[in-house]
Amino acid sequence: MFPKDAWYVCAMSHEIAAGQVMSRTICNFPMAIYRAADGTASALLDRCPHRLYPLSAGTVEGDRLRCSYHGLSFAANGKCQEIPSQTEISATACVRSFPVREAHGLIWVWPGDVTRAEGTVLPGFETGEGYLSGLDFSCLDPSDRWGVAGPHVIHLNANYMLAVDNLLDLTHTAFVHATTFDNAGVLDSERTVKAVGDYQLIDFFAFKNTMSRPLRDGYILDEDVKLFDNFLETYWQAPSVMILVHGAVPEGGNREDDACATVLNTNILTPATDTTSHYFWAQSVYRNRGDGKVRDMWDMMTRAAFGEDEDVLERQQANLGRFGSTSLEDDVSVVLKADKGIVLARRIVSSMVKREGGNA
Amino acid sequence: MFPKDAWYVCAMSHEIAAGQVMSRTICNFPMAIYRAADGTASALLDRCPHRLYPLSAGTVEGDRLRCSYHGLSFAANGKCQEIPSQTEISATACVRSFPVREAHGLIWVWPGDVTRAEGTVLPGFETGEGYLSGLDFSCLDPSDRWGVAGPHVIHLNANYMLAVDNLLDLTHTAFVHATTFDNAGVLDSERTVKAVGDYQLIDFFAFKNTMSRPLRDGYILDEDVKLFDNFLETYWQAPSVMILVHGAVPEGGNREDDACATVLNTNILTPATDTTSHYFWAQSVYRNRGDGKVRDMWDMMTRAAFGEDEDVLERQQANLGRFGSTSLEDDVSVVLKADKGIVLARRIVSSMVKREGGNA
Amino acid sequence: MFPKDAWYVCAMSHEIAAGQVMSRTICNFPMAIYRAADGTASALLDRCPHRLYPLSAGTVEGDRLRCSYHGLSFAANGKCQEIPSQTEISATACVRSFPVREAHGLIWVWPGDVTRAEGTVLPGFETGEGYLSGLDFSCLDPSDRWGVAGPHVIHLNANYMLAVDNLLDLTHTAFVHATTFDNAGVLDSERTVKAVGDYQLIDFFAFKNTMSRPLRDGYILDEDVKLFDNFLETYWQAPSVMILVHGAVPEGGNREDDACATVLNTNILTPATDTTSHYFWAQSVYRNRGDGKVRDMWDMMTRAAFGEDEDVLERQQANLGRFGSTSLEDDVSVVLKADKGIVLARRIVSSMVKREGGNA
Repeated sequence: MFPKDAWYVCAMSHEIAAGQVMSRTICNFPMAIYRAADGTASALLDRCPHRLYPLSAGTVEGDRLRCSYHGLSFAANGKCQEIPSQTEISATACVRSFPVREAHGLIWVWPGDVTRAEGTVLPGFETGEGYLSGLDFSCLDPSDRWGVAGPHVIHLNANYMLAVDNLLDLTHTAFVHATTFDNAGVLDSERTVKAVGDYQLIDFFAFKNTMSRPLRDGYILDEDVKLFDNFLETYWQAPSVMILVHGAVPEGGNREDDACATVLNTNILTPATDTTSHYFWAQSVYRNRGDGKVRDMWDMMTRAAFGEDEDVLERQQANLGRFGSTSLEDDVSVVLKADKGIVLARRIVSSMVKREGGNA
Repeated sequence: MFPKDAWYVCAMSHEIAAGQVMSRTICNFPMAIYRAADGTASALLDRCPHRLYPLSAGTVEGDRLRCSYHGLSFAANGKCQEIPSQTEISATACVRSFPVREAHGLIWVWPGDVTRAEGTVLPGFETGEGYLSGLDFSCLDPSDRWGVAGPHVIHLNANYMLAVDNLLDLTHTAFVHATTFDNAGVLDSERTVKAVGDYQLIDFFAFKNTMSRPLRDGYILDEDVKLFDNFLETYWQAPSVMILVHGAVPEGGNREDDACATVLNTNILTPATDTTSHYFWAQSVYRNRGDGKVRDMWDMMTRAAFGEDEDVLERQQANLGRFGSTSLEDDVSVVLKADKGIVLARRIVSSMVKREGGNA
Repeated sequence: MFPKDAWYVCAMSHEIAAGQVMSRTICNFPMAIYRAADGTASALLDRCPHRLYPLSAGTVEGDRLRCSYHGLSFAANGKCQEIPSQTEISATACVRSFPVREAHGLIWVWPGDVTRAEGTVLPGFETGEGYLSGLDFSCLDPSDRWGVAGPHVIHLNANYMLAVDNLLDLTHTAFVHATTFDNAGVLDSERTVKAVGDYQLIDFFAFKNTMSRPLRDGYILDEDVKLFDNFLETYWQAPSVMILVHGAVPEGGNREDDACATVLNTNILTPATDTTSHYFWAQSVYRNRGDGKVRDMWDMMTRAAFGEDEDVLERQQANLGRFGSTSLEDDVSVVLKADKGIVLARRIVSSMVKREGGNA
């Protein structure tokens, strides 16, 4: 179950050098993703139309990709440009090409209907006024404003929605990350889940000044300041793009100007197959103190915590398999209050899939 | 093909300490088997009803099992006792619980209809009069009467009935165990297979004083005694519980008082999946000589022989797979006279499965 | 998709010593192939009719094969000769036997209808007049006429027809073997594909004196001879037996008397399963110079090149699997002029399968 008419991150910019090609499966499509000599990234179905050999085993020549079996050469639009053993090139000698865009260190691909990709913009959030207004992935570009660690990728043996579920119910942090974050405060905090437009959710936690030792250490907080406005907000956009904004402000201060630390944790999930996904993530620290210590602390802590999530998600997927299923179905699952965001998000994604004519 | 309304050994007592939990698949049910702080063993379906996470990855707290994903806690009867992120607990928040009993170092589970487990007793044999009367697994408790080695477990990549077949046709010992037992005497001995009630068989071998060197050495027989009553009897109870009784008596003596050695070899097969099983086995030596030498000899010899059986059974299962099948079906198999016990046993087990409404 | 009424090589003679047995899957039939004490090779279905145990795990005794589970013994015609636990042998106690012939270092088996094997001859080619007339696999017998390296076997994780395709379109050598053969000449040579009778094809390449450095070195050509008749001919017989004849002649000479080198490269593909095959190959050098250097050069070069083919074919098969298919189907493949031989060969094999009542 995944919408195909959507932008998904297929790779991080630094994964493919000019003149290189790699293979990656996105929404069940094996793709040959390559970068031309001039740096332009493209994605073709990873199957030569002649003898169905993987194009990702081929070589990049200028802006073309040449199959290494019988030497057919293809342009980025998928049209065959050369057949070494003959001069005529039939119109059927072409391979499916996928729309690609690159921004802020990420390469995005559109696995669905090409015509519906036209005029779309890459994911970003409706965040209203304030310092987060127009929040998008420009926070991944290191600058005076943003100190950045990552992006990184985890190739996860679990359906992408299990990872989305995980992030839309952060009460798991009290158990899964008991030692890394020790965030029991999520259990009794006030929580608001709010839809913004048709495809976005925000999940607010209002904590009761219950910050744990690991969190204080992560933000490198002054021991003398006893009371904080500790905040944690998850911005989700369908189907699977998220930024978690969290930080700490001394009582009475405001987030934009007085926050001791504001961390943006980017989480982008891309379906590979029904039971695997690519999990891209990064840390961006707002108005980083210059020495990068908060950024490095959170990169380290999150790396440890995401290792715990990876274990949990893969064990959950494997357990679905032990019971003869690949996905978490509503009819066997008991739904808790904490699952409100999950239920809304799955409903939205499900309606996207249905609108495309698929089975949700 | 396995009856579900039956007691199966799921674990040996020593495998789970108080406060520990393990996962084991029994009759295709993944189970979380745990022992409360007070030592009581319980078995729950290994799947939290919330997000289907394996409960066996959780922790035991007192007499409860807590899921390590979002912290739901369950009693041994499967009812949810605590949901950390909310106060109400709905009646649907429960997980299937399986009846468990523990005796003589073995933990038994009933994977079928709970109501039919009531009033049943754990497996034992109708053995009539004599020193074996009321034969059950109390012979696994070391005592003055019984010297015990084991129990042990083999996790077998073969259907449990293939292992039952193997034990109900001991003519294989002449070939599979040619060097370990060298028991060619089984081929020309008189043999009687007898049903006792609806669910038990006894398979007697009457040997013609043809004891091999390895068997004599196993019993530590006196070289001067030339003639023995060598006996071998298999007690089987449906679906897959067996005790093999074997030994040697000087001519004219009786088994109870004069046997040089009497060995009970317990064999209990538990279906895991259609192609795997758990094989629990032990050796009990009657009125052990005190120094335990006969017990240790048979433990060693049987360990070697069961390694040979394991190879044979897994190769047989793998060969079924090469021919596109998982089970040994009657219509492709040539039945020999020596298969009488197998045919009867499979007929009984098949009727049990049919009575439960399954496909035998 | 493979015809069953055909002779396939199941093993090389040197793979099975007298009194030995091995298991190999041919056309989806697991076979126990054994050689009696007198050297006669036989093939039985690898499954004892009693408990379906693999006969290949048994032992050869004289001209019989004995199962190592309960000791049943079978003749080469598949009839049971002995059941150790009883005296009567029922007529149903038999196992399927496959016709076997052995010649020139190869053991051939007929997996199809036994009655249709009668009167057939082992594969050979209709080659008309000249030194190749009556070309068959006698070229695998080392002699004054033939210097031989091999046969060898590659157990290929690819359908046998992908390997046939590969050899019936040698334009791949310009790319796959760019460094080993550097044979770009195949791309602009004149090429003739010709059917001979109903089951044979010949694929001629007429080169324009474009021999590469590796090819010259392989033939150990005199640097002073500038112009050559460089020839390359593929003889194919349905479904999957091939000999490639190639060599070099100084201008004006003839192949039989004046060739600097004539190499016969035998390629025999045997289907194992739908996605695996056994690839037997050898090199025979005509009127070898006596020192065997040309033979050794080509054995070495071809070994390197066939390693490249193995990579390509397994990657191609794996890519079919990534797209949810096991075979290369016509409707998704763009056909080039260079595929003429492939198209004809597949049509012939397909008609053989249909005539047998199978799905091609």
